[in-house]
Amino acid sequence: MKIAVVGATSYTSIELIRLLAAHPGGIELEALTSRTEAGRSIVSFAPNLRGYCDLTLEKTAVETLQGRVDAAVLAVPHRAAMEYVPALLKESVRVLDFSADYRLKDAETYESWYAAEHTSPELLSSAVYGLPELYRQKIAGADLVANPGCYPTSAVFALLPAVEERIIDDSAIVIDSKSGLSGAGRKLNEKTLFSARQENVAAYGIASHRHTPEMEQELQAAAGNPDLRVGFTPHYMPMTRGILTAAYAPLTRPIALDELHAVYERRYADEPFIQTLPPGESAETKAVYGSNNVHVGVAVDERVNRLIVTCALDNLGKGAAGAALQNLNLMAGLDETAGLRFPGVMP
Amino acid sequence: MKIAVVGATSYTSIELIRLLAAHPGGIELEALTSRTEAGRSIVSFAPNLRGYCDLTLEKTAVETLQGRVDAAVLAVPHRAAMEYVPALLKESVRVLDFSADYRLKDAETYESWYAAEHTSPELLSSAVYGLPELYRQKIAGADLVANPGCYPTSAVFALLPAVEERIIDDSAIVIDSKSGLSGAGRKLNEKTLFSARQENVAAYGIASHRHTPEMEQELQAAAGNPDLRVGFTPHYMPMTRGILTAAYAPLTRPIALDELHAVYERRYADEPFIQTLPPGESAETKAVYGSNNVHVGVAVDERVNRLIVTCALDNLGKGAAGAALQNLNLMAGLDETAGLRFPGVMP
Amino acid sequence: MKIAVVGATSYTSIELIRLLAAHPGGIELEALTSRTEAGRSIVSFAPNLRGYCDLTLEKTAVETLQGRVDAAVLAVPHRAAMEYVPALLKESVRVLDFSADYRLKDAETYESWYAAEHTSPELLSSAVYGLPELYRQKIAGADLVANPGCYPTSAVFALLPAVEERIIDDSAIVIDSKSGLSGAGRKLNEKTLFSARQENVAAYGIASHRHTPEMEQELQAAAGNPDLRVGFTPHYMPMTRGILTAAYAPLTRPIALDELHAVYERRYADEPFIQTLPPGESAETKAVYGSNNVHVGVAVDERVNRLIVTCALDNLGKGAAGAALQNLNLMAGLDETAGLRFPGVMP
Amino acid sequence: MKIAVVGATSYTSIELIRLLAAHPGGIELEALTSRTEAGRSIVSFAPNLRGYCDLTLEKTAVETLQGRVDAAVLAVPHRAAMEYVPALLKESVRVLDFSADYRLKDAETYESWYAAEHTSPELLSSAVYGLPELYRQKIAGADLVANPGCYPTSAVFALLPAVEERIIDDSAIVIDSKSGLSGAGRKLNEKTLFSARQENVAAYGIASHRHTPEMEQELQAAAGNPDLRVGFTPHYMPMTRGILTAAYAPLTRPIALDELHAVYERRYADEPFIQTLPPGESAETKAVYGSNNVHVGVAVDERVNRLIVTCALDNLGKGAAGAALQNLNLMAGLDETAGLRFPGVMP
Repeated sequence: MKIAVVGATSYTSIELIRLLAAHPGGIELEALTSRTEAGRSIVSFAPNLRGYCDLTLEKTAVETLQGRVDAAVLAVPHRAAMEYVPALLKESVRVLDFSADYRLKDAETYESWYAAEHTSPELLSSAVYGLPELYRQKIAGADLVANPGCYPTSAVFALLPAVEERIIDDSAIVIDSKSGLSGAGRKLNEKTLFSARQENVAAYGIASHRHTPEMEQELQAAAGNPDLRVGFTPHYMPMTRGILTAAYAPLTRPIALDELHAVYERRYADEPFIQTLPPGESAETKAVYGSNNVHVGVAVDERVNRLIVTCALDNLGKGAAGAALQNLNLMAGLDETAGLRFPGVMP
Repeated sequence: MKIAVVGATSYTSIELIRLLAAHPGGIELEALTSRTEAGRSIVSFAPNLRGYCDLTLEKTAVETLQGRVDAAVLAVPHRAAMEYVPALLKESVRVLDFSADYRLKDAETYESWYAAEHTSPELLSSAVYGLPELYRQKIAGADLVANPGCYPTSAVFALLPAVEERIIDDSAIVIDSKSGLSGAGRKLNEKTLFSARQENVAAYGIASHRHTPEMEQELQAAAGNPDLRVGFTPHYMPMTRGILTAAYAPLTRPIALDELHAVYERRYADEPFIQTLPPGESAETKAVYGSNNVHVGVAVDERVNRLIVTCALDNLGKGAAGAALQNLNLMAGLDETAGLRFPGVMP
Repeated sequence: MKIAVVGATSYTSIELIRLLAAHPGGIELEALTSRTEAGRSIVSFAPNLRGYCDLTLEKTAVETLQGRVDAAVLAVPHRAAMEYVPALLKESVRVLDFSADYRLKDAETYESWYAAEHTSPELLSSAVYGLPELYRQKIAGADLVANPGCYPTSAVFALLPAVEERIIDDSAIVIDSKSGLSGAGRKLNEKTLFSARQENVAAYGIASHRHTPEMEQELQAAAGNPDLRVGFTPHYMPMTRGILTAAYAPLTRPIALDELHAVYERRYADEPFIQTLPPGESAETKAVYGSNNVHVGVAVDERVNRLIVTCALDNLGKGAAGAALQNLNLMAGLDETAGLRFPGVMP
Repeated sequence: MKIAVVGATSYTSIELIRLLAAHPGGIELEALTSRTEAGRSIVSFAPNLRGYCDLTLEKTAVETLQGRVDAAVLAVPHRAAMEYVPALLKESVRVLDFSADYRLKDAETYESWYAAEHTSPELLSSAVYGLPELYRQKIAGADLVANPGCYPTSAVFALLPAVEERIIDDSAIVIDSKSGLSGAGRKLNEKTLFSARQENVAAYGIASHRHTPEMEQELQAAAGNPDLRVGFTPHYMPMTRGILTAAYAPLTRPIALDELHAVYERRYADEPFIQTLPPGESAETKAVYGSNNVHVGVAVDERVNRLIVTCALDNLGKGAAGAALQNLNLMAGLDETAGLRFPGVMP
C-alpha cells in the first residue's frame, strides 16, 4: 500500500514517519506534503530522521497525490480535513484522518462542540472510528478511518470493561487526564514555551474540551446507554509525551479488587497492545513512552465505593501515530501489529 | 522568639531556613539539629544557604534545646515526633510539628491510618491544627501546633467555601492531586530518582493515602457533617515543587459560575495568601512557586452539574515551610505575614 | 526614586517587578509600559504577581513617562533601545537599559557584531557597564547604565581574579556555557517550545554569539591586555533558569588549588553576592535559583596544566533583573543589597 | 547465539533487553541474572517490558550460565567484572563487558585511575575495545569485548577524523560533556534524586573522571601520538538520556568549514550509525534519543583559530546498550545493524 502523509511536519506525522522507518514492509511511504513548507526536506523539521527518510516536502493538494498513492494520512487541523477528504475519496484514495472531522457520528454534536458546519455529513456513517480494539474488521475494509483522539483512547480503555459489564454508575463518571505537551503540537503559543510549562501543572479546557463527546459516543455504545455522561478535565504536565488518565466512577455494587481485575484482564486478554496491570499496581506513562502499548491499572476505593482506573499511553504513540499505523496495517491487509511490537523507552 | 529546627536537613527545614534568612525579625534561629549529621554545616546539605546561614548541625536531643529556645520546629517522621513532643512541652518549649502525629483529633483514626499506637493522645485536644485561615487565634496561643499536610491544605482551600455554603454533595467528593517530588523528601528511593520520574506521571497511594482523614476532619468540621467523605488520589509529577489539586463534586443545586466565584471571593477576601482567580481561569502551580501564596480557580460543568475547583500551592511553601513560618509569626505575636509577602518565582 | 519599566511583559521585567514587590522601599514602581499590550493588566502576563502588583500596562512612549519618573528600565530589544534612550535622557529620565545597545564602548565593534548602525555613539563613553563589582561608584552617578548580558556576567566572574593576577594564558580561553531557556524570553519560536527542548541539549550561536565581544571588553580591561580573546559556546539546557559557565584556560605557571582558591576568595571577599566555593566544590545552578547570588568554584587540572572555573548564576537574577535592581539601588543612593539579600530556592 | 545478561536490573541491561525484544533474530535471550534480586520478575524493575519479556531473575553465578549460553553480557560494576570474566571464558562463554575492567590496554593506567589492582591483566591484550567503527573485525572474533564508556564514545567520534588528519593540536584538547542522569544508573544517591537535579546543571569529576584515560587511549592510537592529552569535564543535565560533547582544540592550520566538513563526512560515510551534520548545524541529543545513532556537527571559530565539534548520542543507546547489541551482532556473525536501524524518538 503506497501512502502519503499530508501535513507531514506535525509532531504526529513525524512520529508516524519514524515508525514507518522501522516497519517490516507492505506500506510504502510515497510522498510527504505540507501546505507551507514544500521544497524543504523533512529532516529540517525532524533531525531524528536524518539517514532514515530524506523525502522532500511536496505541496499539499489532491493533485499531488492522485494516481500515486493508495491511501493518504491526513494530519491537518479539524475543518481543514473536510476540505480534502471528499476529493481524495473520489480519487479512490483511502484516508486515515488524524483530525476530529469524521470521528463523531452525529453532525450536530460535531457542530455544537467544534463551532463549525460539517460540510460532508454524508460521509459520517461510512467513516470508521479507528480503534481496532472496537472496530477491527470495519477498519480493514474502510475507505475513511477517523483516528481517535488521544484522550478518548485513554478514557475508553480505562472504562470499557466496566461499562460493558455495568459495574459503574454511568451518570457520575469523572475523567481527570494528564498529558504531555507534544499533544499541543508544534503550533506557536506562549503557553507551550518551555519556560511557561516547566515546573508547572495546570488544567485547561475545563468543562469544554472537544474530546468529551468522543468519549461519550464510544462509552455510550459500549454501555448501551445513550445517557452516559463524562465530566472531563485535561491537564498539561511538564513533560513531552504521555497521557495518564484517572477515571473515577461510583460502583453499582461492591466488587472485590480481584474480581474487578479479572473483568479487565479477560476483556483485554487478546489485545496485543493493552496490558492489564496486576491488582495493586497503577499505570505510569514512562513505561509506554515511544510505543503503541497501553497500561491499565484497576483499583477500588472501598471507603467510598468507587472505581479508580489509571490508563497510560503515549499520546503520540497509541494516542496518535501508533494507532494510525495499526489502522494502516489493517487497511493494507497486514498483521495489525507489524512494526509496532516493541516496548516503551524506559528510563 | 528563639527557635530551633529539629531535623534540619530535610527539604522542608531547608525551605524554612531559607525563609528565615529573609525574615524581618522577631524570630531568631538559635540551633539546627540532626539525628545523624551533627557536626556538619547546614551548607553541606543546602548550598543555597551559603552566605546566609552557617550554623553547624547539633545532635537532636531535648537536652540540646532546653533553656536555649522558646520553640522547636520538628521536622522528623511521624512516630518520631511523638518521642520528642511531650518532653519538649515539659521543658516549656513550644512546638511546631511538621509530622502527622498531632493533626488528627481522634487517636483511633490516627492509629488506623498510620498503623501505629499514639503514645500521647492526651495532647491531641490541645494541639492546634496549623491552618491560620481556620484557627488563627488558637495558633497564636498554642503550645503545640500541628502543621498541616500539603495535600490537605490544597484540598481544604479548594472546597472550604463550597462545603461551608453547602453547595456540593458531601458524599461524592473526588480529589485528584498532582504533586512535585520534593514532597517525597530527601529519602533515598529508586522511585524518586531523576531517571525514574522524568517524563513520568503516575498515581500512588490510591485509596490509601494518609492525608485522606486529615482532609475529611477539616472539611467535616467546615461542613458540619461528620459523614462527609473524600476519595483522594495523589499523583507524582515530573517537577520539584507545586501541588495542583482538582476537586470534583456534584452540585446540590444549579449555580452560575459568577455566583460560585462570588462565594469563594467573599470567603477568601481577607486572607492575605489566598487569591481567588477570576471566573474562567484555573490555577497553575508555577504562579506560586517558592511562595506562601495559594491560587484557587472555580468552574462549573453544567452538562453534568458538577463543581470543579483547582487549587495551586507550593508543597514546600504554603504546603509546609511557608505555613510553618506563618504559624511561627502568630505564635511569636508578630504580623502573620512577616517575611512571607512576596510573589512566586515565575517563569 | 520613581521608576517605570518599559517593555514590562518580558520575563526579565516580570522578574524585576517580582523583586520590587518585596523591596524594602526607596524605589517606587510608577508605571509599566508595553508597545503592544497597553490596557491589559500585568497579571495577565505574570499570574505570580496577582495580589502583589495590579498595574495596567500603558503605551510605550517617551510622553508616557516624562515628568512622572526619575528613571526608566528599558526591556526592549537591541536597536529599539537606541530609539528611546536619547529622548529619555533629554527629559532627565535616567535609564537602566537591559539591551546590548550601550554595553560596548566601541561603536564599530557593536556594528560588526550586531549588524546595525549605532545611532547614538556619543552616549557610549558616558554609559556605564552595569556590573557593580567593577563599576560601583560610576553606576551610582550614571544617567545611563547598560545592564550586562547574562553570559558575560558569568564569564567575567569566572575569570576576573585569574586575568587580574595573570594566572592564565589570555589567548586560549574557552568558555562553555549552559543556560536555562528563560534567557530566550517569551518570543515565539518553535525551537523553544517545551516539546522541542525537553530531554534536549544543544549548542547554538557557535563562534558567533553576540555576548562574545562584551566578555572580551571586560576581561581585556581587567587583564590590561587588548589582545585577550575568548572562544564562546552557549548551550540550551532543558531547564528554565540558571547559567553554568565552565571557563577553561592554560595556566601560565603551575599553581596549587589552594593558592588559586585564595586568589578568588580574596578578590570576592567584599562582594555581597559572590561566593567562592571551597576547593574541590563546583558550582550548581539550582543553588542560586531565583536569587542575585553567584557561586564560583575553582579547579586545576594538573595533568594538562589548565584552570577550570565553574560559575553559576540565575540568568534572570544576577544575570538580568537582580543585577538591574542592584544597579537601581546604587542609582537611588540606597544600600546596594536592598531587597536582594536572600538565598536561592532549593530544591 | 544464546546469551545471558548478568546484572539485568541495571538501566543499561534493561535497555538491552528492550532492544532485544524487537531484534529480528539470531540472538536469543536465555537468562537474566542478579546478585540480589533472584526470583523476581524483570518486569518489576522494568514495567515497559510487560508483555515483551517475562523472564525471572536467576542468581548471578558462573554455574547459572555454564552450558546454557554462548555469551554473557556483564552489567556489573568495575572490579566485580574481573571476578567473573576469567571463569566465564574458561567455560567457553564469550563476554561482552559493560564495565571498565578490560577497556584500558595498560594495567597500570587502569590501576592508577581506578585505584584497584587488576587481577587478570593477562586478558587485556586479547580483549577488544568494543567500538565497531574502529575494531569491527576484531570484535567479530573476540571472546572478550569491552564495551566502551559513553563519554569516550562521544569524544572519540567528535575528534577521530580531526586527529587522524592531524588538523588539531593534540596537546590542548578540551572536552566538555553534558550527560543525562541515566548514566548514573539506578544506584541510590541523594545527588540523583529528581528534586536534586531538576533545574540544575553542575560539573562533576573535574580533572578526575575515569573516562579520561579511555579517551586518550583511543585518540592517541588514532593520532599516532602517545602524547595526546585531553582535559575532560562532564556535567549532569536535568534530563534522563543523552550526551552532548563539545570538543575544542586549536587548529594546526586555518581550515575552511567546508573542508573540515568534508573530512568528517568522508570518514563517516560508510558508518551506518554516524551522521555528519551539514556545515552550520550542531548536534542535539533529542534527535538520537532511544536510538543507536550518533550526530556530529563541525564548526570553526576563525577568530580564535579553533575547532569546535559537537557530538550527540544516547548514553544508554550508542553509549551503552546499542553499542552492545551492535557488538553482539558482530560476535554472532549477524548484520551489524540488526535490530538497530531506527530513528531516535523526537519530540
